[in-house]
Amino acid sequence: MADPMRIADLPTPSLILDRRVLDANLTRMRDRAAGLGVTLRPHLKTAKSDRVARLAHAGESGPITVSTLAEAAYFLDRGFADMTYAVGVTPDKLPALAALTARGASLGLITDDPEAARAIGVRGAELGVVFPVHVEVDSGSGRGGLAPDDPALVEIGRIVDGAPGASLRGVLTHAGMSYQCDGPAAIRAVAERERADAVAAAEALRAAGLPCPVVSVGSTPTATFAERLDGVTEMRPGVYMFMDLFQAGIGVCGEDDIAVSVVASVVGHKPAANRLLIDAGALALSQDSSLAGYGRIAAAGDLQVASVHQEHGFVEGASPLPFDRYPVGARVRVLPNHACMTAAMYDRYYVVDGGDEVVDEWDRCRGW
Amino acid sequence: MADPMRIADLPTPSLILDRRVLDANLTRMRDRAAGLGVTLRPHLKTAKSDRVARLAHAGESGPITVSTLAEAAYFLDRGFADMTYAVGVTPDKLPALAALTARGASLGLITDDPEAARAIGVRGAELGVVFPVHVEVDSGSGRGGLAPDDPALVEIGRIVDGAPGASLRGVLTHAGMSYQCDGPAAIRAVAERERADAVAAAEALRAAGLPCPVVSVGSTPTATFAERLDGVTEMRPGVYMFMDLFQAGIGVCGEDDIAVSVVASVVGHKPAANRLLIDAGALALSQDSSLAGYGRIAAAGDLQVASVHQEHGFVEGASPLPFDRYPVGARVRVLPNHACMTAAMYDRYYVVDGGDEVVDEWDRCRGW
Repeated sequence: MADPMRIADLPTPSLILDRRVLDANLTRMRDRAAGLGVTLRPHLKTAKSDRVARLAHAGESGPITVSTLAEAAYFLDRGFADMTYAVGVTPDKLPALAALTARGASLGLITDDPEAARAIGVRGAELGVVFPVHVEVDSGSGRGGLAPDDPALVEIGRIVDGAPGASLRGVLTHAGMSYQCDGPAAIRAVAERERADAVAAAEALRAAGLPCPVVSVGSTPTATFAERLDGVTEMRPGVYMFMDLFQAGIGVCGEDDIAVSVVASVVGHKPAANRLLIDAGALALSQDSSLAGYGRIAAAGDLQVASVHQEHGFVEGASPLPFDRYPVGARVRVLPNHACMTAAMYDRYYVVDGGDEVVDEWDRCRGW
Repeated sequence: MADPMRIADLPTPSLILDRRVLDANLTRMRDRAAGLGVTLRPHLKTAKSDRVARLAHAGESGPITVSTLAEAAYFLDRGFADMTYAVGVTPDKLPALAALTARGASLGLITDDPEAARAIGVRGAELGVVFPVHVEVDSGSGRGGLAPDDPALVEIGRIVDGAPGASLRGVLTHAGMSYQCDGPAAIRAVAERERADAVAAAEALRAAGLPCPVVSVGSTPTATFAERLDGVTEMRPGVYMFMDLFQAGIGVCGEDDIAVSVVASVVGHKPAANRLLIDAGALALSQDSSLAGYGRIAAAGDLQVASVHQEHGFVEGASPLPFDRYPVGARVRVLPNHACMTAAMYDRYYVVDGGDEVVDEWDRCRGW
């Protein structure tokens, strides 16, 4: 029998996913959703993996959220039919979405634009499908969506409800501003705003005689700390699966809850600058700069990737650095600032199960 | 006959490469190298495309530089045998490099570490190959490399020259600090420092009785503005092929010289925030933050992508924004801050030739 493959045998840089940490994160969020009485429709924009999606639903298929047409096609091919495509749709994407629908997907769309809503209804009919549509609500993030009291909300509801190629599924919001919070109390307040705005938007549709079966909210911080979700029917967190230094920084998790890391090799010493060079740089770690630096070295005190070139990372943070512990060729594990960005640089996960043995290899979807 | 495909027909986001601009950039750098009397060994870390590499050599194969093992394998498979792998090598990568060498690659390595040099010599012999090795010189960038007067330089030269599995090819440096320059005069000074340090390192090896046939320098700014390269044998610029807003910002090119852009769709209007939302965000544009914002909208005055989420970009920059000109579904072209980072997010180029007709599709190498 061949020796088992270990992290030390992998090419560097590679992306490591610890299934044990992943399972704990997935279980915790499933329990949250059940406790709050809502459906969990996890956002797969972070993991982009059917293996992870299935584990998120305790081994079954289930409702999911996607951010690209490539993800929609990938997950449909792997048995996930109930999807919400949670990026404002443009008319040119409708033929591809209709083709996926014709192949069996129930593909919910979102829009905050009356013209786009009209196009969905007309093109849906021309393409021979009925697109389920959510009106996108802005609950304070300032990204997509309409304020719950914006008259355009009901206008879009009426356009969709009256169109032969569309059906009104409900309202959807994303409390992106939860990422600017500092700690649970602030996140709880944002979660309540997200809930209240989504429910108010749903009530506005219903008051106009329109159906609104789905009231969808979601972000990992608000899903983690919401105290109640009365009136909400589903939530769509995503990064909770992997967690990252950003989530740890705002109090959503601890560093031990981070399931993904990049294994890199030391490729040089710069004692005069008190730096180690590693072969994970801007491409291997991403350039996410939501935190100082580009990732922390796991189990190494304050060592972090202080700056990056395309294929080089500069490790700094102790004076002097323990160069003897990290000769050229030594390996380090880098915890990501933002798991969505770092994971996106890779085409596969090397899966471990709490240790350093590579027990599996899972593919990922990329592109658009 | 089918209608020709146009940029307006592409899925968004997509990466566009304008062959006409590319050709002009490639010709200019070939002429520079010829005028300076050095070999052009272009760095393919930006383009990662054999089609571009061949055009860089006026339609032929030729010497190139690569930054990953994946690039080395990709280019070898496509007829490029003479490569320099310009990232400090670690011992664990030697078996894969030896396998490429056994398949016909002449794969030059770099190191600035005596222990790594010893490992190359020993492992090369064990693996049945002779690795050509450059000693990496630090000409001021503070990344990899030794100062030209560092005794370790000659020590490494001796280790390599005396090893059965390695041969001393020369010295190599990269004036990364040229990216911090403001304008041609400052870049010229950096180019002279790069040249002088590389030549001094070569002379140090020769004074110790060691061979040093190759003296390699390179960065797009220094290659563009160097006044003389006496004593240098080759240069390795990379981003010159595509150029970008960063190069334009330091005076290396104009915005009209930028050959790559991302085509994106308007997916929403936020008049209260005076913002357009587009479907190109952190993944489609990269998060390179070497400049303010994440890219400029081509032919649109001061409009730029001011901030990004994973799949959304927020366009700002005029007050008020011309919303009527950009309805939901309208398309924009985003010029990249840093072409290497933006191009790395895609698996292909949609090639145009000065217009909006898509005349070809070229693949790209990804990963490590």
